[in-house]
Amino acid sequence: MRDELDAKTLIDTMGQAARTAAAELAFAPAPRKRAALIAAAEAVAARQDEILAANAEDMIFGRDKGLSPAMLDRLRLDETRLRGIVEGLRAVAEQHDPVGEVIAEWDRPTGLHIQRVRTPLGVIGVIYESRPNVTADAGALCLKAGNAVILRGGSESFHSSRAIHACMVAGLKAADLPEAAIQLVPTRDRAAVAAMLRAVAHIDVIVPRGGKGLVGLVQAEARVPVFAHLEGICHIYADADADLEKARRVVVNAKTRRTGICGAMECLLIDRAFYAKHGAVLIEDLIAKGVEMRVSADLAHIPGTKPAAEEDFGREFLDMICAAKLVDGVDGAIAHIRRYGSSHTESILTENDATAARFFERLDSAILMRNASTQFADGGEFGMGAEIGIATGKLHARGPVGAEQLTSFKYLVRGDGTIRA
Amino acid sequence: MRDELDAKTLIDTMGQAARTAAAELAFAPAPRKRAALIAAAEAVAARQDEILAANAEDMIFGRDKGLSPAMLDRLRLDETRLRGIVEGLRAVAEQHDPVGEVIAEWDRPTGLHIQRVRTPLGVIGVIYESRPNVTADAGALCLKAGNAVILRGGSESFHSSRAIHACMVAGLKAADLPEAAIQLVPTRDRAAVAAMLRAVAHIDVIVPRGGKGLVGLVQAEARVPVFAHLEGICHIYADADADLEKARRVVVNAKTRRTGICGAMECLLIDRAFYAKHGAVLIEDLIAKGVEMRVSADLAHIPGTKPAAEEDFGREFLDMICAAKLVDGVDGAIAHIRRYGSSHTESILTENDATAARFFERLDSAILMRNASTQFADGGEFGMGAEIGIATGKLHARGPVGAEQLTSFKYLVRGDGTIRA
Repeated sequence: MRDELDAKTLIDTMGQAARTAAAELAFAPAPRKRAALIAAAEAVAARQDEILAANAEDMIFGRDKGLSPAMLDRLRLDETRLRGIVEGLRAVAEQHDPVGEVIAEWDRPTGLHIQRVRTPLGVIGVIYESRPNVTADAGALCLKAGNAVILRGGSESFHSSRAIHACMVAGLKAADLPEAAIQLVPTRDRAAVAAMLRAVAHIDVIVPRGGKGLVGLVQAEARVPVFAHLEGICHIYADADADLEKARRVVVNAKTRRTGICGAMECLLIDRAFYAKHGAVLIEDLIAKGVEMRVSADLAHIPGTKPAAEEDFGREFLDMICAAKLVDGVDGAIAHIRRYGSSHTESILTENDATAARFFERLDSAILMRNASTQFADGGEFGMGAEIGIATGKLHARGPVGAEQLTSFKYLVRGDGTIRA
Repeated sequence: MRDELDAKTLIDTMGQAARTAAAELAFAPAPRKRAALIAAAEAVAARQDEILAANAEDMIFGRDKGLSPAMLDRLRLDETRLRGIVEGLRAVAEQHDPVGEVIAEWDRPTGLHIQRVRTPLGVIGVIYESRPNVTADAGALCLKAGNAVILRGGSESFHSSRAIHACMVAGLKAADLPEAAIQLVPTRDRAAVAAMLRAVAHIDVIVPRGGKGLVGLVQAEARVPVFAHLEGICHIYADADADLEKARRVVVNAKTRRTGICGAMECLLIDRAFYAKHGAVLIEDLIAKGVEMRVSADLAHIPGTKPAAEEDFGREFLDMICAAKLVDGVDGAIAHIRRYGSSHTESILTENDATAARFFERLDSAILMRNASTQFADGGEFGMGAEIGIATGKLHARGPVGAEQLTSFKYLVRGDGTIRA
């Protein structure tokens, strides 16, 4: 109880400071925000030894805590990774500034001129796990869009995040922007997360960055709106009218290029008519690449496959494992995806325009593709700049969430003593 | 407890039917939706006597319940009002259909072509009070944008809403669209409202239509996202550089054209320098029109004014009453609006571009105006067609919420066997 009260007081205080900073950031000129990000990049480069020393502390803590090798790897910083953070900050600095952009404008017969203009969202809360780079990446993107941000990193990366956060604050100071524009929750206490999720008065949007456990908890508990996806259960459907060579290329890339990202294919749906024409070639290609294929009963005779359990459909493996199933044409694929999909990304392989149109029209995933690898589901690949994540909700931000998606808008209406009849 | 369980079961059942209908509506051709709305308009016209008889029942119930004359007036239907409903349905039928519209498209160096395409939101819940016309207006607008809708009218308008709803269903049938596209909660039980507010699995957005009591309750209790404004506390700021004639025209119109709408001016802020130049003319104009002026101490010497209490600032009168205050320039106005405003609509009266720019830049109301009456805050006046209301949230829909604001989007990505490097 004591902790909860303390956490609420802490988040209220940080939230008020963030709100004040946000009011100022809303009209901070683009060059000032750019300068802050460049100065932050310089600070990270200059304080490399300090950051690596802080990270070493976290690594000791992590090993003592018995973190898995995968988690320790996510936590670990080295010169290459720090260079990545510096480059990331510089890239966001050079991105287009969305604030103040006129999204639409028109005239009315009354003489009014109406503009819809991009504004910041306000205050964004970012809750993440062990990767310390999120401190810089998320902080930078929120600032670019004129938002104040409250960062809450994982307890494992406490010292690393603090050291990187200090560089972000140095950047803000150098550009004469309010320090409270980028705040880091200064405690490992988990009650702070709960307080953030309920801080509707102070935080406009929560963005969770991490695994299914974290995202699921945030989605279930938050009173503040959340931009996120719970899982990326991406499907590829190989239609009867697919071009075989394109299909083989895309399927292997979608599964094996990187298995741990949310855009990786987790289930291959094969049209019976495709199978009749081309046989098991797609499955054989994946097996040859080392993928464990968990297949429906009618594919189980293919050498090297394993029978799929019911729960292998709609499952995010994030590994060299893939489910596969025969379906009856595009409608069979659509029915399967509606039932098992996570509204993230699906791709159809076909040369038939009508079939592709049906797939595009009848599915409502955030991203639908044709003859392209699902691994392209990424803000950078979309040309939208850095992203804070991919969202699968229906409201506001969907698909890659970049600087533009971290904005709202307002209407500016100009008259000349214009009154309503 | 019994009621709550029943209500949950009812809303779950209606929600599942709505979800199924929404999946079909998402790709219903625009002419079919238009035909359904025209057929519904015809049904309302044809069943006029039936609807008026149902309304007569509600009026008896309302009188017995001791409803105020204002509430009884809102409840009452007559031939003129029914004609308004018919015309409203026809107007929405002829509006532009937003679904499938390409909002943006671009090419990537990888060879991918990316489109951002408008899609329906899904299922919308509309909770309203005594005005039976909302059944037609809200139902039509949701359908136009390809959404299924669950309508929950006030208990006073139970029979009227049911009779109008039957016409909407007749329209859906005539156009061969699923009947569950427009559902009306068939009970007066208030537990149904509570169940709707928690139905995150079945309802994507709740739109409350009614007074502050209803909207406040919905905003406080809903787990489903809400598009709404709690209050329209609209300010007009008369700057030193205002044109006097334009200022007089706009101020009188903004307060007196209609006092009961959310875009009516509730507080007049007068720059000290304007007052030094022009004296009390704006206040005198309003008093001459019969407005009760509640003014700050430094204006209280003006004949016919009343001293304002602290709670008169930030108050939505919705009546022939207006607060007024002297402020120090545009920054004084901005500070007052930030403290007392409701982020709905504010207008600045000035010929000075720099001052107007400062007002536009430093305030973040959904609608900011220059030299125009706040009474223009309306979807129709914005040229956006019929609206379901005005929203003041930061996410998704802001300002007038018309058909376009009742949509989401998805990305359609076209490649040619394109894989990620």
